[in-house]
Amino acid sequence: MVKSELVIIGGSAGGIQAAICAQKHHGLKDILVIRSEVEAVVPCGIPYIYGTLGAVEKNIMPDKLLGEAKLKVAEAVSIDRKGKTVTLGDGEVVGYNKLILATGSNPIQPPIPGIDKKNVWFVRKHADYLRQMESAMDHARHIVVVGGGFIGAEFADECRKRGHEVTIVELLEHCLQLVCPEDLCIRSEEALRQRGVEVITSNAVKSIDGTDKVESVTLESGERINCDMVIVGIGVVPNVKLAKEAGLEIGSTGGIKVDEFQRTTDPDILAVGDCAEKYSFFNGQPVPVRLASVATREGKIAAADLYHPQWRNIGTIGVFSTIVGETAIAVSGLTDAQAAKLGYSVVTGEAEAASKHPGTMPDARPMRVKLVFDRRSGKLLGGCACCVATVGEVGNLMAAAIVNGMTIEQVAMFPMGTHPWLTATPLAYQISDAASDALHRSKKAAA
Amino acid sequence: MVKSELVIIGGSAGGIQAAICAQKHHGLKDILVIRSEVEAVVPCGIPYIYGTLGAVEKNIMPDKLLGEAKLKVAEAVSIDRKGKTVTLGDGEVVGYNKLILATGSNPIQPPIPGIDKKNVWFVRKHADYLRQMESAMDHARHIVVVGGGFIGAEFADECRKRGHEVTIVELLEHCLQLVCPEDLCIRSEEALRQRGVEVITSNAVKSIDGTDKVESVTLESGERINCDMVIVGIGVVPNVKLAKEAGLEIGSTGGIKVDEFQRTTDPDILAVGDCAEKYSFFNGQPVPVRLASVATREGKIAAADLYHPQWRNIGTIGVFSTIVGETAIAVSGLTDAQAAKLGYSVVTGEAEAASKHPGTMPDARPMRVKLVFDRRSGKLLGGCACCVATVGEVGNLMAAAIVNGMTIEQVAMFPMGTHPWLTATPLAYQISDAASDALHRSKKAAA
Repeated sequence: MVKSELVIIGGSAGGIQAAICAQKHHGLKDILVIRSEVEAVVPCGIPYIYGTLGAVEKNIMPDKLLGEAKLKVAEAVSIDRKGKTVTLGDGEVVGYNKLILATGSNPIQPPIPGIDKKNVWFVRKHADYLRQMESAMDHARHIVVVGGGFIGAEFADECRKRGHEVTIVELLEHCLQLVCPEDLCIRSEEALRQRGVEVITSNAVKSIDGTDKVESVTLESGERINCDMVIVGIGVVPNVKLAKEAGLEIGSTGGIKVDEFQRTTDPDILAVGDCAEKYSFFNGQPVPVRLASVATREGKIAAADLYHPQWRNIGTIGVFSTIVGETAIAVSGLTDAQAAKLGYSVVTGEAEAASKHPGTMPDARPMRVKLVFDRRSGKLLGGCACCVATVGEVGNLMAAAIVNGMTIEQVAMFPMGTHPWLTATPLAYQISDAASDALHRSKKAAA
Repeated sequence: MVKSELVIIGGSAGGIQAAICAQKHHGLKDILVIRSEVEAVVPCGIPYIYGTLGAVEKNIMPDKLLGEAKLKVAEAVSIDRKGKTVTLGDGEVVGYNKLILATGSNPIQPPIPGIDKKNVWFVRKHADYLRQMESAMDHARHIVVVGGGFIGAEFADECRKRGHEVTIVELLEHCLQLVCPEDLCIRSEEALRQRGVEVITSNAVKSIDGTDKVESVTLESGERINCDMVIVGIGVVPNVKLAKEAGLEIGSTGGIKVDEFQRTTDPDILAVGDCAEKYSFFNGQPVPVRLASVATREGKIAAADLYHPQWRNIGTIGVFSTIVGETAIAVSGLTDAQAAKLGYSVVTGEAEAASKHPGTMPDARPMRVKLVFDRRSGKLLGGCACCVATVGEVGNLMAAAIVNGMTIEQVAMFPMGTHPWLTATPLAYQISDAASDALHRSKKAAA
């Protein structure tokens, strides 16, 4: 039996990052990565395969990222925690001293009648499957996207770029509603409609119809939409089969229970990424946030904490960004609705200014920021920004302010740099101005 | 005599921001802004008048920004601190309860023989002067820009866009050397040269020659450059004449001495912007940083602190950004050389990754980050980023990490969000990866 100092099960974002960082942190050379897929797909890039990139090949993470870690393409079928071994699909047994589970997640397959018909597709992180989906799309005219979250919105946008007729069906009142404040949801829906996507909300697919292949879907409202392809993107469930069967504890959102050092209930097994339970930065409670950026962060933490607790995971704040049409949006931390649900008394502030300055600069577009503060402590709880491409990093700036507990006054006094081509004017920098706005609203409320 | 609750002398970035915020904070309606210029020019936009914007009119701050504050276009000639009055050029005397000085700065006019010749121009924040400069430029063929700092580099770039032959003459070894680490200086020079700018460094203009109008400049090296226009952009001196004559204390970099609440040595007079002394965030010592973004921040602080000290100026960290050709750069806080000069033992880290992910996304370009940490405390002291347009906000993200004293580990674990169109891959997000790099370098150094 071959034994490795560190075995990592799963070779997507979290597993790769753990492998990279275990080498950096501990100089480990004896690492085995077990991955069930021949190729590792860039998870966030999947929708872009179908319009922007044009091929699955352009969305593959190179194995050379693994450095000196060995890669074994195989299915891990069981873990013997006592013997500290993993059994693979071909019967091989590999030993470990430390084990990191990065088994990811699987797309939710809702129990809709007809979901098993031909040309119903899920967003699986599997290159061959995604290639087949590409071929199927080549023959499709009208595509129904089930789910108007980030993945659904991105797929719809990309499918339009290919020239398909596209309809999104979203259960909730708005697309992106689980993550975004309402005004951003509405802007995103407008952007999708401008692209030519039909957006149907507060509705659901009741059945997928057709003899063998999809021919139409019937909505709860009774409406029938003729289509020849369905893409289901309504979320994922943590892939915890291995962990569960090995007797590791599972948390309330379905992920493997981990402590603040990414350790499972077995001290020699850590878990990272979509398969691991996440805990809120704000109150420590489990949160169902599953993102590649969170996975890589946990991969780094697990690698650092492999032998001794060193790096503490301060919790997940949730930093999302996307672009639909020309409308880029970023959301960090809590929306006002989410904050209110957690029991915070919130004070919000907003600011809008041209993305460049003066506003007469070429391609200057409005950039809007909304911030959410805790009235009692004054601390920043969340924020969102739209609609220009710099909002991706503005979301990260908000994340930095959140994790550091910056207060309304500190954000209002934020020492930003500005430049005509790169940012708003220093007289109306959106982040600090939104904090000023919050300050004055809270004063008015107190008066 | 008319008396105002608040008089602000100076109506550029700092003065306008103070007027806006005094209204917001204290509900003040009785504010008088005294400005010597008929129009307020956007300071950072000045170079862009000449290529990108095409007209001074496109670079004016609208007076409506002042809200309910009254504007008086006049020269303030003296302050009577005892009587709490300001005398204007036309003899009018206005009273104040509180006074904010935002008198800005004037361009340095070096004592070069021939500096008074026709067609030698300075970067003055004065609309009519800038219009005359525009007309003069219409008749110029070869322009020599004296000074390769931000303003000089931006002017050179813009003048090339107009089709002029352009030569930059920089005294130091590199352009942008006072603010940027050497590798970014070199990249900027390359970008300027690619634009067709002749870049001459480690050299100076010894004389400006010509009968009446500029015909050539002679360098210290002896070289002679034929030209018909010279633009001098080698920095500014605080405009403190009024303050000095009123007996206010002046600091060692030539600005009006202020405390951490922007108060001068007279408790009823505050000072903000280029005319006010700045103090380093890192060690509290005076620093010669003069930026519109710093001025507006001080304007906010002074407005908040008008009656009672409320908001503390934590000091100036210096956040610069610009774009030369297609090369955008941002610098926050200390470079490694500056940190070493202040006595820090530094550890640096670097990371480069495509600005979008996967790297096959359209227009993905390398984005590079370098971070400088204090080895002892682990805290971030500075950082720089290039070369894509998002670095403006990345510089601000670095600023947030600096003011919050984030450590190497905290930055390495930074909870960033990522998206294919908007940022690097989560596997190689430059900020956290540069921190990881610093960590591993410091471990190696310690081993």
